[in-house]
Amino acid sequence: MSRSAPPASPTLSYEQAGVDYALIDPLKVLAQRAAAATATQLAGHGFSEVKASRGESAYVVDVGPFYLASIVECLGSKALVADEMAKLTGRSYYEGIAQDTIAMAVNDLITVGATPLVVQAYWAAGGSEWFADAARAQALVAGWQQACERCKVAWGGGETPALAGIVEAGRIDLAASCTGLVNPKERLSLGEKLAPGDAIVLLASSGIHANGLSLARKLTERLPQGYLTPIDALGTHFGQALLAPTTLYSPVTEALWQAGIAVHYAANITGHGWRKLLRHPGRYTYRIDAVPAVPSVLRFMQTHAGHDDHEAYSTLNMGAGFALFVAQADAERAVGVAREQGIDAIVAGRVEAGEKQLLIEPLALRFGDDALQLR
Amino acid sequence: MSRSAPPASPTLSYEQAGVDYALIDPLKVLAQRAAAATATQLAGHGFSEVKASRGESAYVVDVGPFYLASIVECLGSKALVADEMAKLTGRSYYEGIAQDTIAMAVNDLITVGATPLVVQAYWAAGGSEWFADAARAQALVAGWQQACERCKVAWGGGETPALAGIVEAGRIDLAASCTGLVNPKERLSLGEKLAPGDAIVLLASSGIHANGLSLARKLTERLPQGYLTPIDALGTHFGQALLAPTTLYSPVTEALWQAGIAVHYAANITGHGWRKLLRHPGRYTYRIDAVPAVPSVLRFMQTHAGHDDHEAYSTLNMGAGFALFVAQADAERAVGVAREQGIDAIVAGRVEAGEKQLLIEPLALRFGDDALQLR
Repeated sequence: MSRSAPPASPTLSYEQAGVDYALIDPLKVLAQRAAAATATQLAGHGFSEVKASRGESAYVVDVGPFYLASIVECLGSKALVADEMAKLTGRSYYEGIAQDTIAMAVNDLITVGATPLVVQAYWAAGGSEWFADAARAQALVAGWQQACERCKVAWGGGETPALAGIVEAGRIDLAASCTGLVNPKERLSLGEKLAPGDAIVLLASSGIHANGLSLARKLTERLPQGYLTPIDALGTHFGQALLAPTTLYSPVTEALWQAGIAVHYAANITGHGWRKLLRHPGRYTYRIDAVPAVPSVLRFMQTHAGHDDHEAYSTLNMGAGFALFVAQADAERAVGVAREQGIDAIVAGRVEAGEKQLLIEPLALRFGDDALQLR
Repeated sequence: MSRSAPPASPTLSYEQAGVDYALIDPLKVLAQRAAAATATQLAGHGFSEVKASRGESAYVVDVGPFYLASIVECLGSKALVADEMAKLTGRSYYEGIAQDTIAMAVNDLITVGATPLVVQAYWAAGGSEWFADAARAQALVAGWQQACERCKVAWGGGETPALAGIVEAGRIDLAASCTGLVNPKERLSLGEKLAPGDAIVLLASSGIHANGLSLARKLTERLPQGYLTPIDALGTHFGQALLAPTTLYSPVTEALWQAGIAVHYAANITGHGWRKLLRHPGRYTYRIDAVPAVPSVLRFMQTHAGHDDHEAYSTLNMGAGFALFVAQADAERAVGVAREQGIDAIVAGRVEAGEKQLLIEPLALRFGDDALQLR
């Protein structure tokens, strides 16, 4: 795999793209502490939290016969790309946007071993007028239903407020909450099963998914043809490629369970790119000896943002949307199960005893213990 | 109770206050149909939806040993009032705003008989800068924690995205998701237990709660002193009174269960005022012979919006935040249980066989079958 060409214009960092985590992080820490303090409330109901789920992708409560998992997740700024592309092409992209929103919640919920059961829709528009575009509204509804059906969840209901003065006129703030069960309880995959020798299986992404869109939007400002810039020999536009809907991974985790393959740990590769492979709290070395093909849209972004591989793999998914850690003996079979669900996969490497680090050997990259600070 | 004084200025309807349901409703109908179609997905997991929960305040799934209830709810525009008042007084009102947001979810979830267990926070800011106001951010966190503790729920986590371009600069879009269990299953209160002869117990509201704020904001524009207009002999400001946090009713429903009092049905009195008493799908007459004291802030709004009692009771809670339907023999005891939890209550009337209507006899008001169209 070749390194990116040097950029023509100055490099563009994630921070320059508009999100200042230094301002948000103190609140996050405060909120995490306050949230942790409320766990004792469950005792009054005869239940208890699964403490290892604090700081993980979904919150898990032991309710006796099974574990209850829940989550709320935001789409982020991908809808802004859909809105711009709609102006340029006259098409509505909200069917895909609906899938993206559900994927944000479902792909996180399954990391703990839960089967997603119910999704609630949160669609907060900048005013009643948003809903007057019937084609767009219908696309959102149709896409939401299809994604629920693909994930075998019931769409329970939701909220469709018109929030003039809070949400910007003509825009919509999309989020999804998801509730599921870890059932039977042995499916819990909060990390206690991960061990040296386990294989790392990477499931293919469909493109940028819904993380890194701020960077993509900033980058677009630099392109003379903007979202209509062709990114491959077929003439696919940048904006169109960005809007490929996020892959839904719950069909794979459910099929693995059906096939008798235990997932030891799982990581949804989102905002911190491949650094998410370091998510498990233990001290292990993750050695990668094969990397998946990089979607054209991500290679294009890497080149035009002037990112070296280190920066690209620490920000974007670079072709790997979800990581599964399974016993070495199950690895090839897990790949087969994923492919049966229409999602490409590779056995990418293995977990080893040793220093906490991620080694991506084909690219000579190393990420150390300090690369991911989520907790 | 006296009728309102005639208004000095033209009356102000809910529609004039900025929400055009004619534009939202077609999407809602479409979404409800699509959502209902996904219910069959649960069969693949060995579960099934409780069909009577479709269109009710929370969605309920039968998972075997108990029912699972879930919901996502939006605060609405109350944060805009907090923002204006902060400018005028230099205080932060986000502790109360946090309680309001949780109340929106919890007070709906308990109507089906569920015990709330986990709340997730959805705090979408207009940019990272929102979180730079440490006092405001701390108030939001502190209020969220306190409300969770009051409701005996665990705060599982949540999302704090910075959504520049979607949420307006300096604003925050607040929502909460809540998951609970109906446990034991006999606590389910989706309406099958309601019967003629049941008593109607009304729990006191703390003020406007979080519904009717668009009307309040519009009204403020007409007042020469705006939010700083005194509304009572103590000189309480209109804005301050509007920001009284919404009462959390789950301590009452939990205490009723502990006291052995079965709730036959429950209605959270929100956006449609007392018309919510007509929520049950059956054909019953709801005869009210006692009304609770009207909070000054609501009487003030009624007067200044030029609403007659019919319009006021069909829009605002007018002192009744939550309705419980219990056996006549349990009614006085239910009032006592609520008061022990610090929430005033009255036995307000009874359910009778007959035409579907709500009769508020002390005010000579009648609302017919056509007054509430929620499904």
